[in-house]
Amino acid sequence: MKTTAFFLSDRTGITVETLGHTLISHFDTMEFTQIQRPYLHSPKEVAKVAKEIENISKNSSLPVLVFSSLVSAESRALLQNCNCVLFDIYNMFIEPMEKSLKIESSHQAGLSHAMGTFDNYKHRIDALNFTLENDDGENSNNYQMADVIIIGVSRTGKTPTSLYLALNYEIRTANYPLITEDLSSEKLPAILTKFQDKLFGLTINPVRLHHIRQERRANSKYSELSQCQYEIRTAEVLYKKYNIPFMDTSTMSIEEIATSILHSKKIQRQRDE
Amino acid sequence: MKTTAFFLSDRTGITVETLGHTLISHFDTMEFTQIQRPYLHSPKEVAKVAKEIENISKNSSLPVLVFSSLVSAESRALLQNCNCVLFDIYNMFIEPMEKSLKIESSHQAGLSHAMGTFDNYKHRIDALNFTLENDDGENSNNYQMADVIIIGVSRTGKTPTSLYLALNYEIRTANYPLITEDLSSEKLPAILTKFQDKLFGLTINPVRLHHIRQERRANSKYSELSQCQYEIRTAEVLYKKYNIPFMDTSTMSIEEIATSILHSKKIQRQRDE
Repeated sequence: MKTTAFFLSDRTGITVETLGHTLISHFDTMEFTQIQRPYLHSPKEVAKVAKEIENISKNSSLPVLVFSSLVSAESRALLQNCNCVLFDIYNMFIEPMEKSLKIESSHQAGLSHAMGTFDNYKHRIDALNFTLENDDGENSNNYQMADVIIIGVSRTGKTPTSLYLALNYEIRTANYPLITEDLSSEKLPAILTKFQDKLFGLTINPVRLHHIRQERRANSKYSELSQCQYEIRTAEVLYKKYNIPFMDTSTMSIEEIATSILHSKKIQRQRDE
Repeated sequence: MKTTAFFLSDRTGITVETLGHTLISHFDTMEFTQIQRPYLHSPKEVAKVAKEIENISKNSSLPVLVFSSLVSAESRALLQNCNCVLFDIYNMFIEPMEKSLKIESSHQAGLSHAMGTFDNYKHRIDALNFTLENDDGENSNNYQMADVIIIGVSRTGKTPTSLYLALNYEIRTANYPLITEDLSSEKLPAILTKFQDKLFGLTINPVRLHHIRQERRANSKYSELSQCQYEIRTAEVLYKKYNIPFMDTSTMSIEEIATSILHSKKIQRQRDE
């Protein structure tokens, strides 16, 4: 079972694609060809896409799905008569919102992915710079500035999670690798004990860690299954001993790890609007 | 004019928050208190949030908006009778999709932000590692592997954009700083000429660049307005001379820069589903 899904936007397309991807992920027995058409600045461009949709519809046994966050009334009208199942987000949400709030919207393309003020921008770039500078235990004299400090043995997902938190939520995220000396002594490194309330531990299934490390450095002591088992076991002992909240990332995406940390540490998500 | 917007999800909350933020950004004369409630795993937890919504509604002159991506029928029913303007995304989209596709959805929480296969995960982490290793002109013997190479003078947004592309779209993004020697010779560095089809240039308003550099290194030659003007002018000469597509990032967010590059270079956005 196969069909096509279009994602139309007059701006970045991030909102309509995020929504559309979530929706089609609910239909796991269907295969969707996904076509992105962001930055549709004029009705003329939309008319072209409408033709594209018509052409694909003609050759498709199932209806073509169109997710649109277009704002221009003229552009939206062009889709109304198109042979497809149209989800016009503007229509579905903005109009009821206007009615219930008794206020008109700005009738401009959504600005949630726009730059915002210079201060917003600076705050975000500062969070990213902090995170880059405090990756992998570097620059640890700076931890009083961190919103959260992620700890774990090598290859549990610390760096991608930290960058995701900084870029998408403006969270100053440091990360610190637990190394053999920390593990064998069963003692938290001194630098971390001062910031215990900021710590969050990552753990992972040792077999999965072994696979990930094999990709990185095959047939080394570092990637041996017994070494992975030892590191994970002792890291978890450490987390429990110091009452550090921790999480098994074996089956989690970066998004899930990042948002779970915010949820667990009750850190307010900061977005620019 | 002030009210409250809730974002409810049984998983990460990324989809419902992305959508909700875009929608409320259309009402720029309103002030919204935003309350995120992700990871609502049980109807019991949803019932608690429903009470929270009721309490806030009582004390609000305008209706409270609730954006929900909850899937569980029992949880969704708890919101039906709540005193609020409810946008039940499941209801608004999944049911019409089921009807038009003549197929049932999986009736599970959306998985678009879940991990996917080991290969998906590996591909994403590989893109991020490539991008980190190829930041700021490092490791430039690796450029045949890059999907795109972002160039520009210092502080035009190369690093944040590169990381955003890697993390959110799995794009292997290298970036290379144009330095005084490149600019004064009006010659593209030799390493870049071999990969001209992968290049994308960033430029920025010199006054804004001056402000950004002042934050970084105040009262230095580096941050002087005349130096910023010189660098931007000559970088643009270089872009035009070599026919490199380029963009002024002065008023653009990281999301806008990243998605515009994909759009301009016709690079397919890669998402895991």
